[in-house]
Amino acid sequence: MSFREAQAAVDQWVGQFEQGYFPPLVNVARLAEEVGELAREVNHQFGPKKKKAEEPPGSMSMELADILFVVICMANSQQIDLDEAFGQMMAKVTSRDADRWTRKAR
Amino acid sequence: MSFREAQAAVDQWVGQFEQGYFPPLVNVARLAEEVGELAREVNHQFGPKKKKAEEPPGSMSMELADILFVVICMANSQQIDLDEAFGQMMAKVTSRDADRWTRKAR
Amino acid sequence: MSFREAQAAVDQWVGQFEQGYFPPLVNVARLAEEVGELAREVNHQFGPKKKKAEEPPGSMSMELADILFVVICMANSQQIDLDEAFGQMMAKVTSRDADRWTRKAR
Amino acid sequence: MSFREAQAAVDQWVGQFEQGYFPPLVNVARLAEEVGELAREVNHQFGPKKKKAEEPPGSMSMELADILFVVICMANSQQIDLDEAFGQMMAKVTSRDADRWTRKAR
Repeated sequence: MSFREAQAAVDQWVGQFEQGYFPPLVNVARLAEEVGELAREVNHQFGPKKKKAEEPPGSMSMELADILFVVICMANSQQIDLDEAFGQMMAKVTSRDADRWTRKAR
Repeated sequence: MSFREAQAAVDQWVGQFEQGYFPPLVNVARLAEEVGELAREVNHQFGPKKKKAEEPPGSMSMELADILFVVICMANSQQIDLDEAFGQMMAKVTSRDADRWTRKAR
Repeated sequence: MSFREAQAAVDQWVGQFEQGYFPPLVNVARLAEEVGELAREVNHQFGPKKKKAEEPPGSMSMELADILFVVICMANSQQIDLDEAFGQMMAKVTSRDADRWTRKAR
Repeated sequence: MSFREAQAAVDQWVGQFEQGYFPPLVNVARLAEEVGELAREVNHQFGPKKKKAEEPPGSMSMELADILFVVICMANSQQIDLDEAFGQMMAKVTSRDADRWTRKAR
């Protein structure tokens, strides 16, 4: 699935409903919520924090997908093309950080 | 660009360097950082918080792409296929929330 | 209760246990978790996002206190005096932002 | 300084200005911003992420104090007494987690 197909799939889903996309500040709060759930899951799997017994086992892949969903909602509501944004970001990262890390010896 | 191509592009970039992917807790902190930058940008564009004069104009699309980058790093480092995760999440959302919102009248 | 008493109360509680304070990156993840819970509660009370039926009613005051707890843990683990930090921050805010907002007419 | 004095100091500062407190969703975004800055600082001090050369050295104590400021703004704007909330939270933590960790041998 491409970024554009994913954006279209979310738009088709959200577009069915009268409520439409949430305002940007609401989506920031949703994103904070989803990042919090991912943080909880990562702490559970990789950190010292024990889950409470009543908490169900979680899944990093589902938490990452939930974050993707909110990112796509924000992009769609602002007419942002994530394909283009991703390309620009990668161009920025690969030029800016070209000397930031140690290249593997060949 | 597909999710798989994006994951491969990030993997090719990160794979050049000895440091490789960050541990999951470090990536959670990076994600918090990027979400914070998005929150700042959204507050600037849509909220009452005035940016300080010395702050450069930002871009929601770049902040969203930065979040995508960290999400992809976390997925790659855990061998998570975002294409599959996205599909599962959409199936969950569309069944769980089918009656949560008001459908548009036809 | 003063900041110092609160820091001492948390230290007395944590100090009973062999695990002691979490490392800073773990506490960042916990903080992200607690901020996510606050965000969910705020969205529920002030935004358009309906809680799922099975979710219990929440409380902003408890979510804010949970954030305080993590902030105090991080401060304690780094020997940071929040009383002093708060004083410095207020001095910074009141000088930096003295002309940022509109003073009420007298 | 007590929680109540800190809440009063912030209220006196904010109360001078026509804008008053931000709405809760705006404060959630500000909190995400401040948590992001703390996360960046923690990653810089304790993680593998190198700061860019142009970034000034930071301070965990100032980032924690900035978080306190937003927490107090949210509490004040909702008439929440943090002293009371902190007491209730500590009572909850110390009863709920009494057997969660390993007590030190005497």
